Amino acid sequence: MPLDGDLTPVPAIDALTLPAPRAQPAPPVARLCTVETEARVRHTYGKAYRDVVRALRGDFAAAPDVVARPSTEDEVVGLLDWATSTGLAVVPFGGGTSVVGGVECRDRSRPVLSLDLRGLAGVVEVDPTNRLALILGGTEGPAIAEALRPHGLSLRHYPQSYEFSTLGGWVATRAGGHFATGYTHIDDLVQSVRVVTPVGVAESPRVPASGAGPAPDRLWLGSEGTLGVVTAARVRVQEIPTRTAKAAVRFADYGVAVAATRDVVQSGLRPANCRLLDPLEALIGAGVADGSCRLLLAFESAVLDPSSDFEQALALCRRHGGTVGDPAGGGSSREWTDTFLRAPYLRDALVRLGVVVETFETACTWTAYADLRSAVTDAVAAAGGVVSARFTHVYPDGPAPYFTVYAPARRGGEVEQWDALKASVSAAIVATGGTITHHHAVGRDHRPWYDRERPEPFALALRAAKSALDPAGILNPGVLL
Amino acid sequence: MPLDGDLTPVPAIDALTLPAPRAQPAPPVARLCTVETEARVRHTYGKAYRDVVRALRGDFAAAPDVVARPSTEDEVVGLLDWATSTGLAVVPFGGGTSVVGGVECRDRSRPVLSLDLRGLAGVVEVDPTNRLALILGGTEGPAIAEALRPHGLSLRHYPQSYEFSTLGGWVATRAGGHFATGYTHIDDLVQSVRVVTPVGVAESPRVPASGAGPAPDRLWLGSEGTLGVVTAARVRVQEIPTRTAKAAVRFADYGVAVAATRDVVQSGLRPANCRLLDPLEALIGAGVADGSCRLLLAFESAVLDPSSDFEQALALCRRHGGTVGDPAGGGSSREWTDTFLRAPYLRDALVRLGVVVETFETACTWTAYADLRSAVTDAVAAAGGVVSARFTHVYPDGPAPYFTVYAPARRGGEVEQWDALKASVSAAIVATGGTITHHHAVGRDHRPWYDRERPEPFALALRAAKSALDPAGILNPGVLL
Repeated sequence: MPLDGDLTPVPAIDALTLPAPRAQPAPPVARLCTVETEARVRHTYGKAYRDVVRALRGDFAAAPDVVARPSTEDEVVGLLDWATSTGLAVVPFGGGTSVVGGVECRDRSRPVLSLDLRGLAGVVEVDPTNRLALILGGTEGPAIAEALRPHGLSLRHYPQSYEFSTLGGWVATRAGGHFATGYTHIDDLVQSVRVVTPVGVAESPRVPASGAGPAPDRLWLGSEGTLGVVTAARVRVQEIPTRTAKAAVRFADYGVAVAATRDVVQSGLRPANCRLLDPLEALIGAGVADGSCRLLLAFESAVLDPSSDFEQALALCRRHGGTVGDPAGGGSSREWTDTFLRAPYLRDALVRLGVVVETFETACTWTAYADLRSAVTDAVAAAGGVVSARFTHVYPDGPAPYFTVYAPARRGGEVEQWDALKASVSAAIVATGGTITHHHAVGRDHRPWYDRERPEPFALALRAAKSALDPAGILNPGVLL
Repeated sequence: MPLDGDLTPVPAIDALTLPAPRAQPAPPVARLCTVETEARVRHTYGKAYRDVVRALRGDFAAAPDVVARPSTEDEVVGLLDWATSTGLAVVPFGGGTSVVGGVECRDRSRPVLSLDLRGLAGVVEVDPTNRLALILGGTEGPAIAEALRPHGLSLRHYPQSYEFSTLGGWVATRAGGHFATGYTHIDDLVQSVRVVTPVGVAESPRVPASGAGPAPDRLWLGSEGTLGVVTAARVRVQEIPTRTAKAAVRFADYGVAVAATRDVVQSGLRPANCRLLDPLEALIGAGVADGSCRLLLAFESAVLDPSSDFEQALALCRRHGGTVGDPAGGGSSREWTDTFLRAPYLRDALVRLGVVVETFETACTWTAYADLRSAVTDAVAAAGGVVSARFTHVYPDGPAPYFTVYAPARRGGEVEQWDALKASVSAAIVATGGTITHHHAVGRDHRPWYDRERPEPFALALRAAKSALDPAGILNPGVLL
């Protein structure tokens, strides 16, 4: 990849010019609000490639007019009331780690309030008998882990954004979790949610399951800030695992490795890790230099002996020619995990060096996958880039492939370059049977494809629900609807 | 229990007097419709105790005016159009096994069309690679099993109504399934649904998972015929299990048995069967005469050796004093299964003998369960009855208890007697933290408690969705909304 050797400088905040704020907070909410430049800058973008590029350019034309930092639910209610009465758009903001334009209000027809929920934080209640914890919406991943640890408990939910993202953000975007199989999405881990809407507070029943009508939680899970603000959730926690059995299984042929992975998940086994790295992903992420691929397998438990499940999974892999113990070196799950954790930091440095680097993700059936991967690879190649693939999650009916794209940037035209690449890859994914997003959410960037994927009667129902819950249309305009 | 020795006769259909039909089918739908007495009688009720009693009395005042039997989706569309244009209420009818008044239209303000979907039946496509099957909404349980068997596949979904109920009915009511743990509800088994609404056909994306907005399927799952007619679903199937490991574990003390059951499900084990029978349930259902209780445990697989999981589950039970191999005789899972399968037939005979016999079910947290069971037992005792309990499903955060009530009937006043008992038990369940239904659905009988359980903003959203999808309000009026 031809780099030009330049390193884009990071602009200084006090050198930035922002549009003048178009709203002036008045009492009683004024004390919760700021129109200062630094706060507005920090709430302008998420963490997509196109966000990083624009931030490096010093382009903050999309900055919110006001940033509010409530620390109680009543303050959230007060801020929504103020927004309704003064005609503001409200963008709920958790960790600000959206990679799909979820926190950037592009509708500039009215002033924008960024509602930073990180003051509404804390693990309020831990219930070891029922394995539940009541956690406020603005609580970040590490704070959740820290509060649960003394009880020997963990949420076991680690999106790549974990260090910064919040429980409320996970619920709003249907975050994908730690486990490659089984109960892993935040959807599965939520027992009940509490949501502030412009017409009142909703809290779903605190029961392990219910068949009473359509599930209320499921309306807010994935609503991306358009139907309310998630102020708390009662989540299912588990004992911290103490026993692990893991291996990186080598397959010379990728198609065979895909079939082996399918066998493992269709057998009924539920490995914590079942991440298949294609040859390029294995090379970049885990130092595998011989063109083979790796299936990272792990089973974990606090109580059970994972060895029987682990051995049965390995036996299934061996039937497909998989081997454990690596003649070519590299490919351990530790190496890959390190890369995974460093990736977002590395990405920001690569962007400064002039590399387009970004990820796409989807889910499709097993039979659709080969064509989908080819179509994505072709689309990226046509744009002068390369793409690697891993499975983040696997299901009996198909994998969730995650693609990382690398291409030389056209300095100064990165956003347009990226948008064109994104459009051609998205078209390839949808044309070959994938969803536009498995766990990155829709935001604003995925809207055109989401609108086509969503059944039209569901769009009608969702619009009607939006009008009922947010009659003034203040919540995250431009997202989903 | 003092029985009076009478056996209520079953009335002859040709002796029944029905209200005159208030609608006359016209072309093009006339050929799909009938106003004959037998068809109307067979579509008047579900299978609740109060339904059986009224049927035995020959009371068919609630009969639908017209019964329609479409066999294509276009015919369903045509019938909804006809209903809209002529102001009929439409009650979607699958197996007619509702025990909550789901198929009995009590709103007599307009003529009622019972839409029997069993002509829209068949397994259209079997996809062994992705473990999926496309099945029409009116297909009954046994027909699904028969079509999948030659492929070595099974849906593994056996509600007690399985013999008569349909896939569309399961989807509409969020049916509870075969497995006591893990992926067992029809919600989990559905990859995508196809629904005819008065404003168009909705089909959700055929992907194993998606994070694109609130899940469309979840709006129709549990909608109980109020938001559309389920004409087909793509469901997740699995290999027919060939290996089973099972035992009935004896516990002398019920509270200890509950704690052991909790330990098993919180360990991460996912037994296919994990049904705890309380002493009365163990006596009636499995012939256990010494006042002990039984935990029916089973693990099953088509591919894996279930013995390690099974042994680890037994080890957890033994830590609580559970024993396998029964000194007092009885209590085998086979005996209990036989009783389970015979129960609905036995129930009908008991009703004729003058016994009030009916079931309630709920789900609650582990810590709520002891008080909930006490409150239910007290409420039933106050009405002169006895109640047994089993867990149908168990979750890490709580069990789904299933209660069977027996009481001497007041001849001639059974419906009123039952409604009073039902009301006091429902109040007890809700007051002690249970949901009004875990898998029997809301129908019309659970409405008062459902309305209180449902978050008010969700009710607003659901009503708005209903207006958008069913502007004329023809679909199953009185259910949910």
